[in-house]
Amino acid sequence: MNEFEIIERFFKDAYPSSKGDLALGIGDDAAIINVPDDSELVLSMDTLVSGVHFFENALAEDIAIKSLAVSLSDIAAMGAKPYWISLSLTLPEIDLVWLEAFSSSFNELAIKHSLVLVGGDLTKGPLSITVQIHGVNPKGKSLRRSGANPGDAIYVSGKLGAAAYALKNIEDSVLYPSASEEEVQRLHRPEARLKTGTILRNIATSCIDISDGLLADLGHILKSSKVGADIELATIPYSDSLKKLDKDMAIELALTGGDDYELCFTLPSGVPDSVLKELESICPVYRIGTITSQESELSLMDDNDEPYDIQANAYRHF
Amino acid sequence: MNEFEIIERFFKDAYPSSKGDLALGIGDDAAIINVPDDSELVLSMDTLVSGVHFFENALAEDIAIKSLAVSLSDIAAMGAKPYWISLSLTLPEIDLVWLEAFSSSFNELAIKHSLVLVGGDLTKGPLSITVQIHGVNPKGKSLRRSGANPGDAIYVSGKLGAAAYALKNIEDSVLYPSASEEEVQRLHRPEARLKTGTILRNIATSCIDISDGLLADLGHILKSSKVGADIELATIPYSDSLKKLDKDMAIELALTGGDDYELCFTLPSGVPDSVLKELESICPVYRIGTITSQESELSLMDDNDEPYDIQANAYRHF
Repeated sequence: MNEFEIIERFFKDAYPSSKGDLALGIGDDAAIINVPDDSELVLSMDTLVSGVHFFENALAEDIAIKSLAVSLSDIAAMGAKPYWISLSLTLPEIDLVWLEAFSSSFNELAIKHSLVLVGGDLTKGPLSITVQIHGVNPKGKSLRRSGANPGDAIYVSGKLGAAAYALKNIEDSVLYPSASEEEVQRLHRPEARLKTGTILRNIATSCIDISDGLLADLGHILKSSKVGADIELATIPYSDSLKKLDKDMAIELALTGGDDYELCFTLPSGVPDSVLKELESICPVYRIGTITSQESELSLMDDNDEPYDIQANAYRHF
Repeated sequence: MNEFEIIERFFKDAYPSSKGDLALGIGDDAAIINVPDDSELVLSMDTLVSGVHFFENALAEDIAIKSLAVSLSDIAAMGAKPYWISLSLTLPEIDLVWLEAFSSSFNELAIKHSLVLVGGDLTKGPLSITVQIHGVNPKGKSLRRSGANPGDAIYVSGKLGAAAYALKNIEDSVLYPSASEEEVQRLHRPEARLKTGTILRNIATSCIDISDGLLADLGHILKSSKVGADIELATIPYSDSLKKLDKDMAIELALTGGDDYELCFTLPSGVPDSVLKELESICPVYRIGTITSQESELSLMDDNDEPYDIQANAYRHF
C-alpha cells in the first residue's frame, strides 16, 4: 500500500469530505473551512514522540487517544468547541496491524466528539504524532491565561497526581504500589475537560490545562496575568493512591506531576451557585487557593498555615 | 534554557502577539484568529524528517526554508494567501547554534511573506519539523484538483526536473555532472509559486503543486476531476541540466522527479491574453498538453506523435 492508499483506507473513509462548515476535507493540497462569521478560530498543535511522551512499547490505541486528547485539552482550556483536526503520522514502517489499531482508536475518539479529520501528512521516520486541532468560540469569548485578578479563587478540575502516580508505579512498583485503574487511564488515555471548559468560558477569568504539573502551569497564569497565588495544601484534591504516600511525596506528585490534563482556572467572586452546581455536575472542581497581587509569587501553605517549601521537601526523597 | 525560554528567544520575540485578524499568538494554550467574514480558511500540514526529506547533514537554514516552503506551496496550489503558521520542532538536543540558524531563516522567510507564527510545539526526539499553514481565499474561490474539464489546456509553471537533477548530482556526479545553482536551490530551498497561485485562482479550473513528480501529481488532478490527459513530451520545459542527458533519462527526471514545487494547472479556452501575459510576467508557464475525457488515462506523446512508454524506457537505465 502506498501513502495515498493508507490514508484512504485508515483515515479518509471514516470522515465526510465536506460537512457543515467544512467545505473540503482530506484529498486536496489543503482543506477548506468556512469559519462561522460570529466565531473566532482557536488552534493548537502538539507532538508526541515515541520514548519521550509515551513508552516505546505503548499500545497503538493508547498512543492514538493520548495524541488527540492532549490537543483536545488545549481546546478545553480555551473554553472552545473542537471541530477539525490535522494529523501528521511519522512511522518507521508500514505496519497494517498497528495502523488498524491506531486509526480505529483515533477515529472513534474523533467521531465521538463530532470532529472531522481534514488533512495532515504520512511520512517515514521514527514514530511520532503531531495533531493540530481547530476549535471555535463565540468571538471574544476564548479563555486566556491572562485574565486572573487578585481575590479570584483558584480551582482545579478532577484530582491531581493521577498520571504521575501511574508513571511512578511503572518505574518503581515497590515505592509506588498498585495504581488504580483511573490513574492508569489518566496516564495512557487522558480525557480532555471539554464540557467543563465550555461552562468556564462564561465565568472564569483565566484557564490553563495541567500538562506540566500544577505549579508550572499555574505559574503561566500568574506570569500572563501579572498576579501571584496562595495555595492551601489542605485543599489539594489528591488522586487516591497519593493518600497512602508520605505527605511530602504526595504533595510533590500532585503539584509537579504532569500529564493529568485537568484544568486550572480562576473564578471571580459572585459566580452564581447555580453555575457552580452545573460545573460540579460534570466534573468535581476544587478550590485550592486565591490569586494575590504579588506578581508571579506562588506561596504554598501547609495544614498549619505555615509556608511550605516544595523544593526543600521534594529533594529529601532522592 | 528550557522549552519556554527557547520558544521566546528564537521564535516568539520575532512575531507580534496580535496583529490584524490574529487576536492571540504564541504563549497561551492555543492561538486565536478572526477569519474575515467573506473568506474561507485554507489549511495544510507537512512533516519533514531528517534522513528522509533532507540529508542528515543538511544546513539548518536549508531545512528551515524547505519546511516552510513546502507548506507555502500547498497554499499556492489552492490560490490562497498564507497568513498564520504553527511549527512543531522535534530536536535531538538543544543546540543553540543550530536553533539560531534555523530560526533566523525560518523567521526571515515567514516575515518576508507577512506570515505570523502563532504556535506549535518543541519536543525532544529525532529531528523532524511539522508546519501547519493557514491561508485565506475569498469564499468559494479556492483552487481544487477536481475542476478540470476535457479540452482544458494543461500547464506547468517553471521548469521540471531541477530538484531531481540536483539530487542525482549529489548521488552520482559522474552520470549527473554539475547541477546549476538554480537546480541546487530548487532542491534545498524551493520557492512556492504564491503569486502565480493567486492569479490562477481567477482563471484555472484545477491546480496542484508538483511535490511527487508531474505524472503522480497530474494523476491526482485526473482522478479528482474524472478526466484524462494527453501530454506532448516536446513541450515539456526541461530544467537546463536535463538537456545534456540522454532523452529517456531527461524525460524520466522531468516527469517523475519530485520536490520541484512548481504548479500544474488546467486552463479553459478563452482565458484573455492579458491575463496569460500577467501570469507570464511573474513566472514562465508552459502548455504541456490537453485534458481528455478518458478517465484517469494519461498518454505521453513523443516528438513524432507516437505513444511513449515511460516505464519501459525508464527501466533501461537500471
